Amino acid sequence: MTYHTDDTIIALSTPPGSGAIAVLRLSGNKAFEFTNKVFRSFSGKDFSSFKSHTLHFGSIYDKEEVIDEVVISLFKNPLSFTGEDVVEISCHGSAYIQQRLFQLFIKQGARVANPGEYTMRAFMNGRMDLSQAEAVADLVASTSEASHRIALQQMRGGFSGEIKELREQLIHFASMIELELDFSEEDVQFANRNELKELVSNLITHISDLASSFALGNVIKNGIPVAIAGEPNAGKSTLLNVLLNEERAIVSDIPGTTRDTIEDEITLDGIRFRFIDTAGIRETSDKIESLGIDRTFEKINTSAIVILLFDATLSDAAKLDAAIKAVKEKTAESTKVLVVANKSDLGNEAELRSKFQNREDLIFISAKQKQNIEGLKSKLMEFANANLLHSNQTIITNVRHFEALNNANVALKNVYSGLEKKITGDLLAVEIRRALYHLSEILGQVTTEDLLGSIFSRFCIGK
Amino acid sequence: MTYHTDDTIIALSTPPGSGAIAVLRLSGNKAFEFTNKVFRSFSGKDFSSFKSHTLHFGSIYDKEEVIDEVVISLFKNPLSFTGEDVVEISCHGSAYIQQRLFQLFIKQGARVANPGEYTMRAFMNGRMDLSQAEAVADLVASTSEASHRIALQQMRGGFSGEIKELREQLIHFASMIELELDFSEEDVQFANRNELKELVSNLITHISDLASSFALGNVIKNGIPVAIAGEPNAGKSTLLNVLLNEERAIVSDIPGTTRDTIEDEITLDGIRFRFIDTAGIRETSDKIESLGIDRTFEKINTSAIVILLFDATLSDAAKLDAAIKAVKEKTAESTKVLVVANKSDLGNEAELRSKFQNREDLIFISAKQKQNIEGLKSKLMEFANANLLHSNQTIITNVRHFEALNNANVALKNVYSGLEKKITGDLLAVEIRRALYHLSEILGQVTTEDLLGSIFSRFCIGK
Repeated sequence: MTYHTDDTIIALSTPPGSGAIAVLRLSGNKAFEFTNKVFRSFSGKDFSSFKSHTLHFGSIYDKEEVIDEVVISLFKNPLSFTGEDVVEISCHGSAYIQQRLFQLFIKQGARVANPGEYTMRAFMNGRMDLSQAEAVADLVASTSEASHRIALQQMRGGFSGEIKELREQLIHFASMIELELDFSEEDVQFANRNELKELVSNLITHISDLASSFALGNVIKNGIPVAIAGEPNAGKSTLLNVLLNEERAIVSDIPGTTRDTIEDEITLDGIRFRFIDTAGIRETSDKIESLGIDRTFEKINTSAIVILLFDATLSDAAKLDAAIKAVKEKTAESTKVLVVANKSDLGNEAELRSKFQNREDLIFISAKQKQNIEGLKSKLMEFANANLLHSNQTIITNVRHFEALNNANVALKNVYSGLEKKITGDLLAVEIRRALYHLSEILGQVTTEDLLGSIFSRFCIGK
Repeated sequence: MTYHTDDTIIALSTPPGSGAIAVLRLSGNKAFEFTNKVFRSFSGKDFSSFKSHTLHFGSIYDKEEVIDEVVISLFKNPLSFTGEDVVEISCHGSAYIQQRLFQLFIKQGARVANPGEYTMRAFMNGRMDLSQAEAVADLVASTSEASHRIALQQMRGGFSGEIKELREQLIHFASMIELELDFSEEDVQFANRNELKELVSNLITHISDLASSFALGNVIKNGIPVAIAGEPNAGKSTLLNVLLNEERAIVSDIPGTTRDTIEDEITLDGIRFRFIDTAGIRETSDKIESLGIDRTFEKINTSAIVILLFDATLSDAAKLDAAIKAVKEKTAESTKVLVVANKSDLGNEAELRSKFQNREDLIFISAKQKQNIEGLKSKLMEFANANLLHSNQTIITNVRHFEALNNANVALKNVYSGLEKKITGDLLAVEIRRALYHLSEILGQVTTEDLLGSIFSRFCIGK
């Protein structure tokens, strides 16, 4: 895919389908010329008299045929989203009208925009850096409070600001080293080596923190993976349905904003939990060695939380210990195991508790009777809050940024060990330039067409 | 449903779902106040300084939390769609953001708009008459060139203009008669009875023409009903699939404008043809008297066109004559029967033609080999063009208008016969007022809350 930014592009910016209105967006140096040819204002004013940031009622004509009565919005470059001349046409939302308007502008020479091309142009024209541009797609795709907050913060330049600061510190350092190179014959040291080591060490720590936030960021963006494990008939499906259905019921019923509910997700207090299908897992103690168990346990392994569900009336302390042990053996250290005793409605809770030696970590519920589901939910939230919500910390969600940060740190670690080994300035300079390169990658100061192609092709059309 | 036009209303105007952008529309006397409280312009300018028809970049805040960066459009009353103060918020198109913005404005006191409430307010505030308001919904729903043209013409006041003119002629007439009533003691006649009769006769003709356009309008709006009839194995399903699939293939592939294709419809040159399911019809001559045939023939009866399909290799002239006779007996005079000989690929066309005595109305096709499908399509178009496309004529598509026109004509016919019988002016006046009432109904000059409720509840939300 190549990008000709000389073209004037057009796309539907609103979701496809019928609605009260639809918005078509034209961007490029012929946006005004094309619009002027087909738009006649009701006010009788001439198109050339229209100022930036103004709205105009009128009709769109295809020769002498009226296609629709519309409102056009005018944004003159550079004060538009793309930095180019932009016209937004707000038309009646029939598919027929959308098609006719499309065809009309394409006939004049406009080109259908590629996915993300508006945002790419905004980036190309310096309206935002690359990490901000990437956040636009994340923002549109965000479905929870946490993912929305991270995307918005990134779009507003929070993350870029941090990277820019790190970069400036590094540039300062680099300039010292490069200066020494100019005077290399004279064996001077402009840069205090101890101060430099401290600076590099700080940079490494800071970048490590950012890179390690990716695990959290990824979880926030894609939901916290939760597996419900347990013997057959422990009530796994019933519990899952109770959790999912309650969520369905509280989904806002504001008309027209129906959310695309995903079958296996719930959102609690703005955090998404994604339930992993564990159907077919047979993790009872007596079957734990059976064939295929590793494959099914892989799923549990990728979970941040395992809900180990058992039938409180049928199990006993020894069986439970064995099951917990089996799950913990197969999961990462960081995986949280919630031990949940189901069917509490079928027995006396105090008696059942004593049967399990009054373990404090037991959560008693009745999935069938919907008892103490709130208790379970608050345990899920507790885990999320303890692990995810350091809200003032910058959290990265983008694998490209993660890789660039790691690459920058590899170079910086070479700088650090080079300083320790007292290697020469020219060798240090190579690694510093590498580190700078990778930080610049994040902001898009160094890019390739392939990179841009792969980033923006993931956008929706019209953005 | 009651309408409180004091409320400030909010709705999503763009189709639901995720997209690059979404547009929320606020209308009412607190639209500016509500927006001002949560919007901060990037330009730093104060909300109160914003002029009508201007666009402003900025952020929407919920307390100190940024919800989104948006563009707002300002329309000050009365120069807005509704005639009220209107703010349109163009936000990033995530469902999450849409919901948050919704909630933010509802918390302040905005109300979720009822279906069609924006258009209803436009009507209430005199921005359009009722028939124009109704056309807005038709325009949004229109899926073909013909239905779009009629809706747009109606929205732009074409039909209203005609009704207003008829009404004015009638008012002039009424005023003459009423004047006579004031002088009834003196037995004067201000209105020349012969001129009056001619005027009333003209009105009746004109209104009849409009009313009779409803049959066409209905067909254009809902598609021309076409039944494919024929013996089992004549190739009915194959033909239907060929017709529908070709259409699928030529549906424009402009991204983002995918049309909601309806399973049994094709659009040829802007005219919709709707195929009626005739599966199970056994209309061969030997089975024509069998039980249940009337019920299945009802479907054919409601068609404007019947494609009578037969297997050219198996049938003969006598059988065909019987089949045509059977279909014609069961269908209305105006129904067009296209006699289509299928499987022309299995024989020599000249020989097959002579077998059917070289009937000129035979259309030879091969559904399987897709031969001469274009020939069949052009016959369908020929019928449509001959019957539907008197493009300068006003065509009504709304059953409410149809009924009002008929009611007006009943009253006018009473006036006419009253004039012939030389009945007194006061009796004429009653009928004239009735006719005027029904014409005024169309324009919405006389309405009831029930009527408005039933009209606008059929709109989509946000319009």
